[in-house]
Amino acid sequence: MDLTFCEPQRTPSSRSNAWYETGVVGLGRMGRIVVDRVVEGGHDVVAFDVDETAVADASDAGATPADSLSELVEQLGAQKRIWLMVPAGDAVDAALTELEPHLDSEDIVIDGGNSHFEASLRRERETDAAYLDCGTSGGPAGAEHGFSLMIGGPEWAYETCSPVFDAVATGPDGHGRMGPAGSGHYVKMVHNGVEYALMQAYGEGFDLLANGRYDLDLEQVARTWNNGAVIRSWLLELCEEAFREEGSNLGTVADYVAGGSTGTWTVEEALTQEVPVPLIYAALAERFGSRSDRFSRRLANRLRYGFGRHEVARTE
Amino acid sequence: MDLTFCEPQRTPSSRSNAWYETGVVGLGRMGRIVVDRVVEGGHDVVAFDVDETAVADASDAGATPADSLSELVEQLGAQKRIWLMVPAGDAVDAALTELEPHLDSEDIVIDGGNSHFEASLRRERETDAAYLDCGTSGGPAGAEHGFSLMIGGPEWAYETCSPVFDAVATGPDGHGRMGPAGSGHYVKMVHNGVEYALMQAYGEGFDLLANGRYDLDLEQVARTWNNGAVIRSWLLELCEEAFREEGSNLGTVADYVAGGSTGTWTVEEALTQEVPVPLIYAALAERFGSRSDRFSRRLANRLRYGFGRHEVARTE
Amino acid sequence: MDLTFCEPQRTPSSRSNAWYETGVVGLGRMGRIVVDRVVEGGHDVVAFDVDETAVADASDAGATPADSLSELVEQLGAQKRIWLMVPAGDAVDAALTELEPHLDSEDIVIDGGNSHFEASLRRERETDAAYLDCGTSGGPAGAEHGFSLMIGGPEWAYETCSPVFDAVATGPDGHGRMGPAGSGHYVKMVHNGVEYALMQAYGEGFDLLANGRYDLDLEQVARTWNNGAVIRSWLLELCEEAFREEGSNLGTVADYVAGGSTGTWTVEEALTQEVPVPLIYAALAERFGSRSDRFSRRLANRLRYGFGRHEVARTE
Amino acid sequence: MDLTFCEPQRTPSSRSNAWYETGVVGLGRMGRIVVDRVVEGGHDVVAFDVDETAVADASDAGATPADSLSELVEQLGAQKRIWLMVPAGDAVDAALTELEPHLDSEDIVIDGGNSHFEASLRRERETDAAYLDCGTSGGPAGAEHGFSLMIGGPEWAYETCSPVFDAVATGPDGHGRMGPAGSGHYVKMVHNGVEYALMQAYGEGFDLLANGRYDLDLEQVARTWNNGAVIRSWLLELCEEAFREEGSNLGTVADYVAGGSTGTWTVEEALTQEVPVPLIYAALAERFGSRSDRFSRRLANRLRYGFGRHEVARTE
Repeated sequence: MDLTFCEPQRTPSSRSNAWYETGVVGLGRMGRIVVDRVVEGGHDVVAFDVDETAVADASDAGATPADSLSELVEQLGAQKRIWLMVPAGDAVDAALTELEPHLDSEDIVIDGGNSHFEASLRRERETDAAYLDCGTSGGPAGAEHGFSLMIGGPEWAYETCSPVFDAVATGPDGHGRMGPAGSGHYVKMVHNGVEYALMQAYGEGFDLLANGRYDLDLEQVARTWNNGAVIRSWLLELCEEAFREEGSNLGTVADYVAGGSTGTWTVEEALTQEVPVPLIYAALAERFGSRSDRFSRRLANRLRYGFGRHEVARTE
Repeated sequence: MDLTFCEPQRTPSSRSNAWYETGVVGLGRMGRIVVDRVVEGGHDVVAFDVDETAVADASDAGATPADSLSELVEQLGAQKRIWLMVPAGDAVDAALTELEPHLDSEDIVIDGGNSHFEASLRRERETDAAYLDCGTSGGPAGAEHGFSLMIGGPEWAYETCSPVFDAVATGPDGHGRMGPAGSGHYVKMVHNGVEYALMQAYGEGFDLLANGRYDLDLEQVARTWNNGAVIRSWLLELCEEAFREEGSNLGTVADYVAGGSTGTWTVEEALTQEVPVPLIYAALAERFGSRSDRFSRRLANRLRYGFGRHEVARTE
Repeated sequence: MDLTFCEPQRTPSSRSNAWYETGVVGLGRMGRIVVDRVVEGGHDVVAFDVDETAVADASDAGATPADSLSELVEQLGAQKRIWLMVPAGDAVDAALTELEPHLDSEDIVIDGGNSHFEASLRRERETDAAYLDCGTSGGPAGAEHGFSLMIGGPEWAYETCSPVFDAVATGPDGHGRMGPAGSGHYVKMVHNGVEYALMQAYGEGFDLLANGRYDLDLEQVARTWNNGAVIRSWLLELCEEAFREEGSNLGTVADYVAGGSTGTWTVEEALTQEVPVPLIYAALAERFGSRSDRFSRRLANRLRYGFGRHEVARTE
Repeated sequence: MDLTFCEPQRTPSSRSNAWYETGVVGLGRMGRIVVDRVVEGGHDVVAFDVDETAVADASDAGATPADSLSELVEQLGAQKRIWLMVPAGDAVDAALTELEPHLDSEDIVIDGGNSHFEASLRRERETDAAYLDCGTSGGPAGAEHGFSLMIGGPEWAYETCSPVFDAVATGPDGHGRMGPAGSGHYVKMVHNGVEYALMQAYGEGFDLLANGRYDLDLEQVARTWNNGAVIRSWLLELCEEAFREEGSNLGTVADYVAGGSTGTWTVEEALTQEVPVPLIYAALAERFGSRSDRFSRRLANRLRYGFGRHEVARTE
């Protein structure tokens, strides 16, 4: 194992080795992938989670276990690099609050969750450490191939952690410093807005094929497209997988789409910037629309009676 | 040209009475309103429908009954003015085919249904009579106030029938010759496309109010708006009526919107003319969307599992 | 003049007459209409604006002039009713800050501008007076017919001011208490969102007619529709006026739509409530889109070269 | 059924060589790629185009040149396989009309252009040959990697030509028989509708990034996304290339998007099937909207004066 991956030229020889390690806080699906890829990359990891079983599992995978944040901090020593992979929101603030007394300007905190960029800007101001907001895309499949990491914050901190990013990302091209604080989560936010629209766009195409003039094998359609067509993509490979596993009629998959926070942020920011995003908005609105009856349409139903005496469709 | 044909009291005594009459074919809700308003306007009407009861009722209301199209034709004599108020489509062609042997270039046929303008162009070519395509808006409420009539076809035929149009419309401002053949149904088609969008626009506003931060009396909201607000309109008066009759939650009114042919034509024509109509399209798509599960969203539901291992919502 | 319009039964007999008066702060287009209608309604008005000419004009119209907010307050005496008709935003806060030392729980402040409902909720908390947020719709045309007033706040304050609202609105049906604090501006916000969509819906219809198969007189189309058609409305009357004054091709009217704050608030609130408002959003996005080149489309232009070697359209 | 027609090495010696060959009609960008890939696949090609230079070039590349369609037919002999790669529309019908006297039920015609599926259904009825409608995706890049081929028509004809499809496509997974006649072009039509939406979705994301809070290197953003992010795709690689070649501001690339026929067909079919495709429609409408001023917005501009006396923006 090479312990010098983080800017060895800046390391005073008198220091312990501890600081070469990366602390990972949060060992859920995504955090665990970070641990595994950093370990596989030949680096040391100190791992902590409130769930002791998750810590034990990470330990089995080669990480040094920590029973608490303070133990994790202690083990990391000076020039700490701490990767937070906890759920966006209060959990990030809670971890930062607990870490703050132990952090100074030579430490680096990487926030790998889906935080709002304005929360990242606030956290960057509130912590003494260098704060890197790190948008992470790729999902569980990243375990194998690595993630795409969109990173904002001080250049020196980004450079310092590059070897770790190389390990966690698909490689050097899979991570980049987008700009100053907040820019990583900003770019990730927009990524997710685009993601909503792409999913809905494929969905509309397959909707038409599923309800159109021909009896089609949608897995075959997706496979044919994925091999050479202009619209080939990873999401289309996931469509192919979905049709293979669920059938061309998607079986029991319900007309209900959860989620929506990052898409909402994207549209809100687009409103602020006065940038029209009709497709992203439409995709987000479809999610909302999938969750309940639409009052707007119920009124339209009733109005058609009002002006045309068309029969009103009614529930029981 | 004699413009007085519809006003028997102004008829030179040497002419037969027959030509002053208007024939009305089709005595459904709309056709019956035409009969009543023409009668109330002081003109003679010969009325026919395949439903004998409807003919008898029209007779009670002052129309001369006809047992068949040929009897209607016979009673009208020369310079026939025949108002077709039958369902758009095959019924119009069937009536025209049966009438055709009796028609010549001095006769006028008014097609008052929601025909596609291209069908009107075809019919105009196929008949020896002057053909007026007449878009009719106002619904059952037109019984009291009169309709809005958008008319296409030869100017002389339009002028000839103006007194009858005065009676059926809200008055001279309630009808107009839009242009040559087809233009009446063309303008009516666009009217309906706009109508879809207006209904959905109001619906979205009330949807937000119904599901928003305040517990509101939507009838009161609509009434307040109808008295002086920028968005006041007849459709908003119908909203007010709907909330009065159904309650602020619209009771049992279902999330199901029927209809859509004229809106579809509008979007198709807008595609042909390359005119963007995003609101009209969105309103139409909402109707389609109200009628079944959305395959596109079901796929999005499943894809979120594919890339993020988010739980798939499933039906039973 | 009836001096008893404000709940005389609650008035201690020992008080001066001053409290029957309404103070109006802000004498722009809308504020001046408020003054005129209240005066015409037989009530006393004390009027103030930073523009001395506007005060003099209001005085000529029958209002008692005030040189300053403190003079206005003095003239109103106890149980003040002060109608703020200043631009939404800082001007409202500035006026309230200056008024605050003079206000107590028996006073009523009416905020008639387009404030965000959350600002209204804040102001309601910050003032000792009863705060009525009053959404006002109808524009300059309200001078003749009165406004539609959507009012939020304490019931007693609304009831107290009802006679003044009767005068300023189109009548008793033209104003209503929507609910508690903020609800007036909330309903007005939604009103404006709907307004954007209605304008764009009519615009799409006329766009298709202007670029479609027939050479149409759009003023005539609008007039025919306004007389009996389902889509008749005040906005359609304004369309008719626009075509009369600008011609069927709208002359030099530019493809540039200003404004957008209330529509933005509507969409933001709809995002928060997870209510889909695709038409309102699309109408708002059109405004943004009218103001500059679209980067999204420039990229699409370039991508068509990428996959299909289609020629790239370029600016000079 | 003889599946070996494209593999001369497996040809029984008693047969003439001619029938193993594939005729390619139309040697533009796409047709030439077909020629090259079939030749590289080890098959014989007879090539014809009205442009003699194109024929000579194809000859240099290993194809047998034909001076006319009849010469091409003659060289192919019995059991002809003719790949038409001419512009969709009249050119296909012209070629088919000229070929028809020479075709019988053992011949196969492959229509590789972007024909409407209903034209394909008609052509299938009109020709004596087996007709395979072949949607082709991948663009010029297909020269290297092969195309995605979506094929409709008789199973035997598809199977017969499979070796050629293997050569032209990315491989066996890059082509598939979707179903009976028309289904190939049907699936390709939907493919293109989805393509429009994907392009616009990426465009909206980059629009927000280009006009948002950070000064970003969009090539770097695209590269980071292309390496592991959920939205990675071939189109996103083309975005990366576009930003590399044009810069993050896209230089002189104009806000003008040409094309639209297949997207229009997709929306029309979706209207017929009553399948909502709001994103695909919105993407198509953006193209139309990029080509001229928007009358709808000009009217909205003017209406804001009508109800609010907002200044009208005007052109010179």
